[in-house]
Amino acid sequence: MFNIAVAQSGGPTAAINASLTGVFNGAEACPEIDEIYGAENGIEGILNNQLLNLRAILMDDHDKELLMKTPSTILGSCRFKLKDFEQDEESYLKILDTFNKHNIKAFFYIGGNDSMDTVMKLDRYFTAQGIDIKVVGVPKTIDNDVTETDHTPGFGSAAKYVATSLQEIIRDSRVYSIPSVTIVEIMGRDAGWLAASSCVLRANGEPAPHMIYLPEGDFSPEKYLEDVKLAQLRYKAVIVAVSEGVTLDIKELEDDTDGKTDAFGHAMLGGIGKKLEKYTAAHIGCKVRSIELNVMQRCSSHIASLTDITEAERIGREAVAAAIERGESGVMMCFKRISNNPYRCEIVSAEIAKIANQEKKFPREWINLEGNNVTIDALNYFLPLIQGEPEIEYRNGIPVHFRLNQ
Amino acid sequence: MFNIAVAQSGGPTAAINASLTGVFNGAEACPEIDEIYGAENGIEGILNNQLLNLRAILMDDHDKELLMKTPSTILGSCRFKLKDFEQDEESYLKILDTFNKHNIKAFFYIGGNDSMDTVMKLDRYFTAQGIDIKVVGVPKTIDNDVTETDHTPGFGSAAKYVATSLQEIIRDSRVYSIPSVTIVEIMGRDAGWLAASSCVLRANGEPAPHMIYLPEGDFSPEKYLEDVKLAQLRYKAVIVAVSEGVTLDIKELEDDTDGKTDAFGHAMLGGIGKKLEKYTAAHIGCKVRSIELNVMQRCSSHIASLTDITEAERIGREAVAAAIERGESGVMMCFKRISNNPYRCEIVSAEIAKIANQEKKFPREWINLEGNNVTIDALNYFLPLIQGEPEIEYRNGIPVHFRLNQ
Repeated sequence: MFNIAVAQSGGPTAAINASLTGVFNGAEACPEIDEIYGAENGIEGILNNQLLNLRAILMDDHDKELLMKTPSTILGSCRFKLKDFEQDEESYLKILDTFNKHNIKAFFYIGGNDSMDTVMKLDRYFTAQGIDIKVVGVPKTIDNDVTETDHTPGFGSAAKYVATSLQEIIRDSRVYSIPSVTIVEIMGRDAGWLAASSCVLRANGEPAPHMIYLPEGDFSPEKYLEDVKLAQLRYKAVIVAVSEGVTLDIKELEDDTDGKTDAFGHAMLGGIGKKLEKYTAAHIGCKVRSIELNVMQRCSSHIASLTDITEAERIGREAVAAAIERGESGVMMCFKRISNNPYRCEIVSAEIAKIANQEKKFPREWINLEGNNVTIDALNYFLPLIQGEPEIEYRNGIPVHFRLNQ
Repeated sequence: MFNIAVAQSGGPTAAINASLTGVFNGAEACPEIDEIYGAENGIEGILNNQLLNLRAILMDDHDKELLMKTPSTILGSCRFKLKDFEQDEESYLKILDTFNKHNIKAFFYIGGNDSMDTVMKLDRYFTAQGIDIKVVGVPKTIDNDVTETDHTPGFGSAAKYVATSLQEIIRDSRVYSIPSVTIVEIMGRDAGWLAASSCVLRANGEPAPHMIYLPEGDFSPEKYLEDVKLAQLRYKAVIVAVSEGVTLDIKELEDDTDGKTDAFGHAMLGGIGKKLEKYTAAHIGCKVRSIELNVMQRCSSHIASLTDITEAERIGREAVAAAIERGESGVMMCFKRISNNPYRCEIVSAEIAKIANQEKKFPREWINLEGNNVTIDALNYFLPLIQGEPEIEYRNGIPVHFRLNQ
């Protein structure tokens, strides 16, 4: 008998707790696993020996049902970057100490590109030291920018929220008789997947958003104005979806990013919506509004994708099978799409070195020639990921969340 | 046999189309009513003789079902202010011309305080001229600031969206281990009802939002900082709900309102969230974020309150009964709350002069002594209004909206 640990890292999604439930379910099904520990605030909880006994927290099926539909990370998260063990072995010794103290033989890390760096480094260290602790990554991010996997858990739910909200914004924008431009800024640090996914409205005959701009396209301010003017000939209320990673660095606008960077050195973006609003208002004489979907797009469990939540649980369970049944380590679990219609995905594992610190950009060939929208191939890729709705439990008219503490 | 007309005015809500459906249903049930006209863009559509035949648009029960769950105004809206007929009779003659041309004997105007001004003026004119055209108002606004009625259609759905989103933002804010303050700016031009309604989370044992600030309270920047510091002693992630009508006019911050006013002379507010963010960051050393729920809070049909949508349809139907069966005119339909538990509301009519251009503020006695939260009476008032969820029809994973045209 031995124990395992699981932790969550990076930004919140609506599906990261479903993957935690999946790891828990997978571990519960393994007769050789005794305790199932959850580390608070990602790898920091392992470093500081802050572990929770998940069997004492997830007491019954109802708890697990609720946890699956609770957004963000019930265990907390972190943005901690582990140095190479050759430079700083101390952190590794601390981690090892926690693992040894609790007889932890497998560690599952649910996170994005950056978190997979931790999986890779831990596995490298354990392999180098000849220590038999398996380390397996479980992907998650609304950015959908993780390599080797067809898509990431969390993305489908974010895409469903974006499409649903955007459709409501479209209805809202048509209310007055005057011409208007509404710019909706959608998350995606360096990759435009989530903004691109707003094309799904087309499947229901909705022509808006009339333009979609991604960081993978070559955004030209002049071409943008032409696009808007052309759209205005046909539509009274023009809707623009823009990825936060799109840049508009022209002299007439001040730079709003303030050069801020996060712990991983990434530029903290934001503000393209406001910038485009100012730019549009200055060059096109009509009502202009910009809307930021903000953190709501990454934690909107009330309009999650059932496909996403179901897959997130499944990939968590498969991670346990990979580590315990097949003895894998230094891998991340990946979705491999078999077909679009009917939609089928297999779960496989991929070498972590191919994934950590990499970034999967939105394919250039799925951007139209004009650079202001995406192709039918993109639509076909996105559609299966937003299908289905989890049954939400309401109490007093409000969705019920699983809560660990205040 | 005669005809009737209905129009929608003011800002969008998730329930205004349900009231339109209600007027339609009420008229359909009257054997003496022939055509049911919908005016495009509110009173402007009457002025310009832009009428749609609603019987040709709402063909079956499914159309009506969808329309009930479609946000914003299917007929379009306006912010047109009619002058007194003594000053400018021309507009009245135009309106009368449209009514006469189409044998319209009753006009139903769905709108807020400002739209009720139109109802009042039209009724005054017809009465003065001895013209038998009934004019009846149907309330709607997410602001809930209309007098004489217990609450307004559209408010319950907005409140349900705010509570649901706020709860997700709360989960999101707890993800990292560092202290933080999250400020959520909630709509409400001069009245704090919608921000106040965020207290409903308390019914499920959620202590956040930890503070709620309303324009009806005396907001003090110094007291606010004290409140935040006190809350930080207990909560790592402090959540502040603030109504957009709260002002923070201190020298260290620039004024962001730019003195903009709308057609009715109301100041175009917004920006208190960003101001408080700057102010908090400057005075309290921690991570601060501000979030604007923006237009999503007024058009979020996907998380509408069933109570709200049902009542909105009902009050529309009752308006037709008031005008046609009881011969009323110059009135607005109102909810009269009979009891909270079980929740019961009657629909009555009230004299329009008591309503037009008035504003119902959030009661001072429902604000706590500290001025940073609301009382249990407020909670008991709000809770019934957010109960129940309409069954949403999805196609391709996206809610289906009723669409008149692109």
